[in-house]
Amino acid sequence: MDINGFTHTDNIRLSDDRKHVVIVDQTKLPNRLEYFNIETPRQLFDAIYELKVRGAPAIGICAAYGIFCLAQQISAEKYDEFYEEFKRIRVYIESSRPTAVNLGWALKRMESVVIENREKPIGKILGLLEKECLAIHEEDMAMCKSIAEHGLSLIKDGDGVLTHCNAGPLATSCYGTALGPLFLGREKGMRFRVYADETRPLLQGARLTAYELDKAGIDVTLICDNMASIVMKNGWVNACFVGCDRVAANGDTANKIGTSGVAVIAKYYGIPFYVFGPTSSIDMNCQTGADIKIELREPGEIKEKFFKEPIAPESVKCYNPAFDITDNSLISGIVTEKGICRPPYTKSIAELFCNKREL
Amino acid sequence: MDINGFTHTDNIRLSDDRKHVVIVDQTKLPNRLEYFNIETPRQLFDAIYELKVRGAPAIGICAAYGIFCLAQQISAEKYDEFYEEFKRIRVYIESSRPTAVNLGWALKRMESVVIENREKPIGKILGLLEKECLAIHEEDMAMCKSIAEHGLSLIKDGDGVLTHCNAGPLATSCYGTALGPLFLGREKGMRFRVYADETRPLLQGARLTAYELDKAGIDVTLICDNMASIVMKNGWVNACFVGCDRVAANGDTANKIGTSGVAVIAKYYGIPFYVFGPTSSIDMNCQTGADIKIELREPGEIKEKFFKEPIAPESVKCYNPAFDITDNSLISGIVTEKGICRPPYTKSIAELFCNKREL
Repeated sequence: MDINGFTHTDNIRLSDDRKHVVIVDQTKLPNRLEYFNIETPRQLFDAIYELKVRGAPAIGICAAYGIFCLAQQISAEKYDEFYEEFKRIRVYIESSRPTAVNLGWALKRMESVVIENREKPIGKILGLLEKECLAIHEEDMAMCKSIAEHGLSLIKDGDGVLTHCNAGPLATSCYGTALGPLFLGREKGMRFRVYADETRPLLQGARLTAYELDKAGIDVTLICDNMASIVMKNGWVNACFVGCDRVAANGDTANKIGTSGVAVIAKYYGIPFYVFGPTSSIDMNCQTGADIKIELREPGEIKEKFFKEPIAPESVKCYNPAFDITDNSLISGIVTEKGICRPPYTKSIAELFCNKREL
Repeated sequence: MDINGFTHTDNIRLSDDRKHVVIVDQTKLPNRLEYFNIETPRQLFDAIYELKVRGAPAIGICAAYGIFCLAQQISAEKYDEFYEEFKRIRVYIESSRPTAVNLGWALKRMESVVIENREKPIGKILGLLEKECLAIHEEDMAMCKSIAEHGLSLIKDGDGVLTHCNAGPLATSCYGTALGPLFLGREKGMRFRVYADETRPLLQGARLTAYELDKAGIDVTLICDNMASIVMKNGWVNACFVGCDRVAANGDTANKIGTSGVAVIAKYYGIPFYVFGPTSSIDMNCQTGADIKIELREPGEIKEKFFKEPIAPESVKCYNPAFDITDNSLISGIVTEKGICRPPYTKSIAELFCNKREL
């Protein structure tokens, strides 16, 4: 599958010698398709912090590959020393971004392999780590496909869809999450009109979503974030599709800053608002959105980055939260690989994990 | 009064020889304070279209000064020829921006002087035109002061105010409209926390509002437009203050793109939302917002302007409306120089023009 100018397995991958991770540097898009090699803990930390790799599932996949590569560099011969060093790296990498659950989730899965196989030789553990990170990637592809299929049931040929930030192939693997139904529908010959919020301050909607959809031949119109209201009022939007970085047990959803505003506006205009993500994005340790930590970033991202000149005087303060929480009451459904959760979410999400019934 | 690094009379003024208009070039702020001379019809048109001068009241003042200067250049000796040429210029200038009512309103006031004094010599008419444009400017200053006083009754010391775009001194004269209460309150020793939406695509909130407030020593925090929701949810905002470009007879308000989204979000969080403008911004010929023409602008403003590199591929379409309509049901009050109109607006606005009672 080649849906955006590079194959989905090429987005994040192990190098041929399995020693380092190769990623598409998302900060260089849409003007340059460049690859970045991750060979050191610092490079992995920075790649995540600087958003060279971004999107909750993609961060998880990259971190899993990354810690496998870094584990190979640990010189310890005894298990305890090996594990101590592995854990030190894991804690450091996990601190790069606090909001997306997938980062901690993927690293924990990798660490479990180390812990559960403590009796085995280190060479054997490394082999199991390699299998685990490849499995995380493969599972993500299958999840994306499944999410896309469930999501496609929510729209019909000719519909208009508004999306915020980027939850497409670059943010995940394969089809993406929120954009999955659009790519899958396109393969089936369906046509959609997509309105992509540019998503300030880092412009993922312009740089990545508009780029991916345009390359795939999907009708996309770029708008500034503050145009979502007029576009909905114009009657052009049948549904809003967004990704998620962490979902609480009650359905409250952390996603890219601005998502909650889109949800409030969609509710006002009577437009359904759907959150897309794998069940690994649901954090049952967070009862509500209030338990989710919101990452605050530098003022320079608002005032300077991307611009020829600063857009405000140096003395002006900025508030720059990377995410916000969308209240569950604003969400029409949460689309996972296991099906679509509907309100009340405390019940439907709990059932997702119990597998008590088909959703 | 010197409230933002240049006196309010210096913002837009006639040159000493009364032959051309001198304006602060707002497109160069906040990095450079540069002045621009308007001497030809094309320069006046471009200054308005390119937003060198912007803000509904400021456009009106500039157009009035401008058409006075251009009228002096008309070589006709007979009244009919003079008037034909005057009207030709007026129509041309009026076509520069369709949404703000003040442009047409100020030009019409100037044209009325020409029509009503058709019996007088052209030299005499020019003298009356000069008086009229100076009067328009002076009236605007008095209006701003009055609007600021009415608006100040809506907030108390220590309050947080969110504003969108720029309705400060640069957009008007004197105190501005929506920012007026903040400047006036500051003079009285009051302190406010202001959240300024950056206001994409042209960033008037960052470049002008944050600049003006910061210079005046008012506590201002710059946010991206999509952060208004989290800032309101955080409980930091007691009221939203915005300007207006045209208000319909029923209170529906055209203002900078994104205003309607702020209003919807404010309503959701139970925060009062106020529109500020002189009564000259009210267009009784528009029954509702549906009668207000929305200016569509170039995609380059979204994708290229201000940026080091394009933020989206050239093939990606943009939708770039300069304004949106905020439904009257979302507006808590419309603050004019004559007082604060409250719902139902069809009644309170009509009374404003009848002067039947004190509002």
